[in-house]
Amino acid sequence: MRAEIISIGTEILLGEILDTNAQYIAARLPALGIDLYWMTQVGDNVDRLREALRRAWERSDLILTTGGLGPTEDDLTREAIAATLDEPLSVDSALEAQVRALFASRGIVMPERNVKQAALIASARAIANPHGTAPGWWVEREGRILVAMPGPPAEMERMWEKEVAPRLAKLATGGVIVSRTLKTVGIGEGGVDEMVSPLLGSTNPSVAVYAKADGVHLRITAKAASRDEAQRLIAPMEEQARGILGNAIWGADDETLEAVVGAMLQERGLSVATMESCTGGLLASTITDVAGSSSYFKGGFVAYTAEMKIALGVDEELIRRHGVVSQEVALDMARAARERLGADLGIGVTGVAGPEPLEDKPVGTVHIALDDGRAPQAISYAFAQSRAAIKRRAVTTALALLRRAVLGR
Amino acid sequence: MRAEIISIGTEILLGEILDTNAQYIAARLPALGIDLYWMTQVGDNVDRLREALRRAWERSDLILTTGGLGPTEDDLTREAIAATLDEPLSVDSALEAQVRALFASRGIVMPERNVKQAALIASARAIANPHGTAPGWWVEREGRILVAMPGPPAEMERMWEKEVAPRLAKLATGGVIVSRTLKTVGIGEGGVDEMVSPLLGSTNPSVAVYAKADGVHLRITAKAASRDEAQRLIAPMEEQARGILGNAIWGADDETLEAVVGAMLQERGLSVATMESCTGGLLASTITDVAGSSSYFKGGFVAYTAEMKIALGVDEELIRRHGVVSQEVALDMARAARERLGADLGIGVTGVAGPEPLEDKPVGTVHIALDDGRAPQAISYAFAQSRAAIKRRAVTTALALLRRAVLGR
Repeated sequence: MRAEIISIGTEILLGEILDTNAQYIAARLPALGIDLYWMTQVGDNVDRLREALRRAWERSDLILTTGGLGPTEDDLTREAIAATLDEPLSVDSALEAQVRALFASRGIVMPERNVKQAALIASARAIANPHGTAPGWWVEREGRILVAMPGPPAEMERMWEKEVAPRLAKLATGGVIVSRTLKTVGIGEGGVDEMVSPLLGSTNPSVAVYAKADGVHLRITAKAASRDEAQRLIAPMEEQARGILGNAIWGADDETLEAVVGAMLQERGLSVATMESCTGGLLASTITDVAGSSSYFKGGFVAYTAEMKIALGVDEELIRRHGVVSQEVALDMARAARERLGADLGIGVTGVAGPEPLEDKPVGTVHIALDDGRAPQAISYAFAQSRAAIKRRAVTTALALLRRAVLGR
Repeated sequence: MRAEIISIGTEILLGEILDTNAQYIAARLPALGIDLYWMTQVGDNVDRLREALRRAWERSDLILTTGGLGPTEDDLTREAIAATLDEPLSVDSALEAQVRALFASRGIVMPERNVKQAALIASARAIANPHGTAPGWWVEREGRILVAMPGPPAEMERMWEKEVAPRLAKLATGGVIVSRTLKTVGIGEGGVDEMVSPLLGSTNPSVAVYAKADGVHLRITAKAASRDEAQRLIAPMEEQARGILGNAIWGADDETLEAVVGAMLQERGLSVATMESCTGGLLASTITDVAGSSSYFKGGFVAYTAEMKIALGVDEELIRRHGVVSQEVALDMARAARERLGADLGIGVTGVAGPEPLEDKPVGTVHIALDDGRAPQAISYAFAQSRAAIKRRAVTTALALLRRAVLGR
């Protein structure tokens, strides 16, 4: 099945936004056995949009579009598809009722122009979009399929996952490509590359190493006639990789470090509390990104000032002697968080997020400590980068330290 | 001058890499007065590459390609351009000498297959690439220009900046395009669209409405001979838009809501403290994403449990009567945060981030309150979306409420 992606939006052609939707979809087609031949970005211009759709209709079996389904005059995807297929647009009353109901649920009266989002053509069926006001379109005609999805990534991804991918999986035939990603932390890219070098020669499955924000990833990719067959090629290679990398592997595929660590805490009936300075709440926010984290997260303090740290029980003398940006204070913050909130484990994070140095300590200096009431441990490093990058790296390191502590029990 | 970008590489169509080159170029064309009509990604396949080039040659004045200039068998851009323009490829001896010299300078003997990187066609001139082994191509024929650049961003960007952009600047005559983005909060996309509908008919400057995570954006875009002239076209339209949208506009262009609100707090010498439940620290983290926020952010509590809320001074009776997910408790959290940390303003956020309902309140129920010691205010709404989206929306709403309170003083 030959597929083509068309991303719609003048913002993309002005370089104001990066077309991440196309990559999201492209990355998921191989597992469905669908070959992607073309990706096109076109602006909010009905003529060029029609040209792109006509060409796609000529050369592809499956056309996936994103964007242009909003309520404004610039949202022309519905109009362009209708014109390309020469079918009249008409408002579907049932669909209109749904859109109105969605607005009502948000306590808003639907602006009249949103009615156009309830329009369909004869060969189109609406695709539910509980995350937004724009339903998608599933068009089938002349043995071709055209799927129109909304542009906002959250809405598009949800529609892809729950509605579009499952239907395409039923249609697709031919060989599939399946990938398995093992995620490690604590070893550099070069280190992982060296350790697994005996595996890198393999062609099917192939093995590749990537450095990512949450550590180094090892991707095993197999091509086979069926998903099961591909899995059978991957399994022994994964076993070898796990034998080599051991505990450095914290998860696989879509797993996140916070979810993996959260599951470990839940399993062992352990709880955690945080006291953050330079990460400003990002650590607590990341821990609580996990559904069900309330069962192990006792709470957190964003102690941005020395006064607040002291009020929460951090030793004033330590601060005077070592400064707030010190391993000693990070350790005492971890202890204070644990004791204050009656948690099994406490994490303390202090550092210099920048752009200005603090206490003459350079931007990027970070101290992360974990206190379990028995053997406190701390990590200190310097990572001179942007404020956002410094915060992200500190959160990943704190979660890795938490994982190590839990594994050690 | 109508331009088109073609990005070449199978990794892009497999979703393994994001096509950032196209965005890099797209973002720089408006200032050169060049209109970008098409962006296409195509794999390392000579037939599809030829089709893309032929179409581009038919409909565009300027074709910019990236990728496919390497030494391997997968690098087919030169071959495809030669075939499309029906001109023979031949190795240019001077160019070959340069490529060999480059290898020599790195102490390597040039692999023979790299000779193909020294090939040209009659209408092509080589573009220097000191950062890599692949020279670019500048092709001129039939009043059209085709520029082939290497795929590695560092090489492409250097070639664009030093070689391609300067030459295009001389050719471009279409004037420049300048955009101004006004950012609003508190009104839906359809609502803003309706309010500014009298402006939407304008063609230069043009006006467009976009829904974003931080509210609804209004973009005014002008095309003129010079930047100043474009500004003169934008100014009166911006004035009209501001007249219509008034206080709903919180910022412009690259400004963030947290930075704008932070500057307002700093200017007025006001401080703020937070107590968050469902946002789990994301509000504090967002406030402290702003450099210098330590001067107005007194600190925050991530009170994920009722116990912690009560320990921090939230009225136990209120919780018993209304539940933790209630406007009453949100207001008391705001008060407690303000009093505990001695801030001028306190913000309380409580709600159901999901996926499970809480106290029989549906997922997406959020109560946000602001306490300034005089006239507390609160916002309640339901926004049934993903956990991440619910958190983001709550943070934006909290910052908008904070802005409103500061404006009201």
